Amino acid sequence: MSYQTAERTDEHVVNGVDVGRLFDTVDAIKAEPEIAKFRFKISNQWIDGGRNHTTIKGFYGAMNDHPHVEAFELDADEPEILLGQDKGPNPVEFLLTALAGCLTSSLVYHAATKGIEVRRVESRLEGDLDLRGFLGLSEEVPVGYEAIRVSMRVDADISNQEKEELIQAAQRFSPVFNTITRPTRVTVQLESD
Amino acid sequence: MSYQTAERTDEHVVNGVDVGRLFDTVDAIKAEPEIAKFRFKISNQWIDGGRNHTTIKGFYGAMNDHPHVEAFELDADEPEILLGQDKGPNPVEFLLTALAGCLTSSLVYHAATKGIEVRRVESRLEGDLDLRGFLGLSEEVPVGYEAIRVSMRVDADISNQEKEELIQAAQRFSPVFNTITRPTRVTVQLESD
Repeated sequence: MSYQTAERTDEHVVNGVDVGRLFDTVDAIKAEPEIAKFRFKISNQWIDGGRNHTTIKGFYGAMNDHPHVEAFELDADEPEILLGQDKGPNPVEFLLTALAGCLTSSLVYHAATKGIEVRRVESRLEGDLDLRGFLGLSEEVPVGYEAIRVSMRVDADISNQEKEELIQAAQRFSPVFNTITRPTRVTVQLESD
Repeated sequence: MSYQTAERTDEHVVNGVDVGRLFDTVDAIKAEPEIAKFRFKISNQWIDGGRNHTTIKGFYGAMNDHPHVEAFELDADEPEILLGQDKGPNPVEFLLTALAGCLTSSLVYHAATKGIEVRRVESRLEGDLDLRGFLGLSEEVPVGYEAIRVSMRVDADISNQEKEELIQAAQRFSPVFNTITRPTRVTVQLESD
């Protein structure tokens, strides 16, 4: 897998994405699908009430462990009205953050492979959540988001039709979008002392 | 809705959660279900390549807009092997962060309503992602996480059976867990200039 390929030049870079390396990656995965298997990992520690702290040290992929340049540390909390102290975004806001970032990167990387230069991508997301689910007050309302709406603005010298195609590609290839819109298997187990 | 109830005392606080206020909220929602309807909102701006920035200013809930004490600003990026600069967690890591935080808060709040004091809650999460989905190299592998595994450790003076019940409650009442494990409707639209 030629991640450090000698023939890398700036001409390969579109939207900040090294398209030469991206195509090299595609070729490498075609030859050895095991390279495509990634495993992302985090750990979380409860602090108090709605506060908790996540540490992200690294991940596995391309048949190797990869520590992050430095570990990422994230604080979550609930706002005052949800009985927290508002010391960080709450988990459902982190979920929207994940979705926005993933749709954006999927759009930008996909555009790069097509040679489409984008100048700006902006998005606004909102999600409807009925607390009666969380509080066990209704079997009828979903516990999770009932609906999430994403509005994306793309600034590029392409037609509206081509922008719509980019939006479609973003949804088709975004891991977070697909994790949320399809049922995903999550197993939770108690770790014994 | 008596969020600022005069009879609040420290005895109502379990695990940092003001259980008196929580039960007041439940009563208020039973009387007026509209109070339970929340809408969370974020905006995101692409920076370069796999980098993008999320801003979280506030949310709507309990029939009012609520600005956060200060806006939350989050940077996402991809690691070097995924053609980024590793300036922030990547979107699929943010998704695991959301899930960890939500399961933890669901567990802690639920325990509080039962009067169960917990000393520590720790979790480790990992998710399997096959990049062939994102790269369009296979129709067979999911584009999103194939599976997510959560391991939780709970330190409290209760039996293992009671800990298992807390783990079950965490899953049942966690909005993020339910958003991920069930198909959730996400609509994406292009915003015109």
